[in-house]
Amino acid sequence: MNLEKDFLDGKKIALDKLSKAKNENKADEKILPILDLINKSDDYYTSSSCAGRIVLLEIPGIGDKKNAKFLGKWHRTIKPEEILSSMKNAKTGQLWLLAQSPILHLTAKNNVAADKMVKTAVTSGFKNSALKSIVGKIVVEVCSTERLDSPVGKDGVLFCDDEYLQLLVDIANDVINKSTKKLCRFKDEMKENF
Amino acid sequence: MNLEKDFLDGKKIALDKLSKAKNENKADEKILPILDLINKSDDYYTSSSCAGRIVLLEIPGIGDKKNAKFLGKWHRTIKPEEILSSMKNAKTGQLWLLAQSPILHLTAKNNVAADKMVKTAVTSGFKNSALKSIVGKIVVEVCSTERLDSPVGKDGVLFCDDEYLQLLVDIANDVINKSTKKLCRFKDEMKENF
Repeated sequence: MNLEKDFLDGKKIALDKLSKAKNENKADEKILPILDLINKSDDYYTSSSCAGRIVLLEIPGIGDKKNAKFLGKWHRTIKPEEILSSMKNAKTGQLWLLAQSPILHLTAKNNVAADKMVKTAVTSGFKNSALKSIVGKIVVEVCSTERLDSPVGKDGVLFCDDEYLQLLVDIANDVINKSTKKLCRFKDEMKENF
Repeated sequence: MNLEKDFLDGKKIALDKLSKAKNENKADEKILPILDLINKSDDYYTSSSCAGRIVLLEIPGIGDKKNAKFLGKWHRTIKPEEILSSMKNAKTGQLWLLAQSPILHLTAKNNVAADKMVKTAVTSGFKNSALKSIVGKIVVEVCSTERLDSPVGKDGVLFCDDEYLQLLVDIANDVINKSTKKLCRFKDEMKENF
């Protein structure tokens, strides 16, 4: 097994994929400067990422992601009306409102580089960051603790009244705003330490 | 730095702490057989754990765990009436109903042992398992993806009607039931592979 070659080959494939996503405007602009910073280093390459999002999901049961349907997906703060309007396509199953903070996967060249990245991420507020794999490919997951995982209705019916929906939307927007701030801190920490 | 000695010293302290918790009936019985299995191995020791729980929390704002107050805490499935009765002590701040699947931290002797534990945990359904640290102390976190993080009210007022509360309680109970099953699978996988 040639780890150095595997790493370089993996990096080439990942960068090609990212470059293609950029050209097709499929890369999330809020996280792109961070991906570029990481990929500039010889010790890392990024494989997947999301800058944080709000999602309205229809699922048959908890954990049954296979059959989940996205009714709405926003990479920004939202208004309650946007939930109501996305509800129009709801049919059967549980309705969940999710707010997900940023998530980023990267491969590190060695354990020391991986550990440094986890520590930098934790310092920047991504307290759930960890190493997903260390034998063979060394994969780091950068992620945070803030989130909303809230059932909001069933079989096409929203269970929240206006005040409740406003509270949920406020909290979801708070996750997005905090995510943006943490991404900025992460960028600054990396510029300083890498 | 003597890693072998650090590991053995750490294991002694952790086992003494666990033994004390057992004597004071503070250890969670659903997870104890797993802790004992892990600690029997020369390659690991457990440092903290929770078998999964349902929590009614009062917090001033998202992420402000420092000032959070537990209004109710159950290591089992619950009935909606138990939420209503715990609500009596609510005063000011957001009210959240959480269902948390099991979480377990353990220290591994080396990277290979750590990687084996992560893979066994993932196979048993604990798909969010990862290495939290690999330089110095090697710490593995065993955890799952199912969870409920749902705001349910504000300033002492529950925002859910009976039907909504029943849905939330059903989902929270589902997390607990799935957690129990996963802990069993994890125990079986370990018995077979360790």
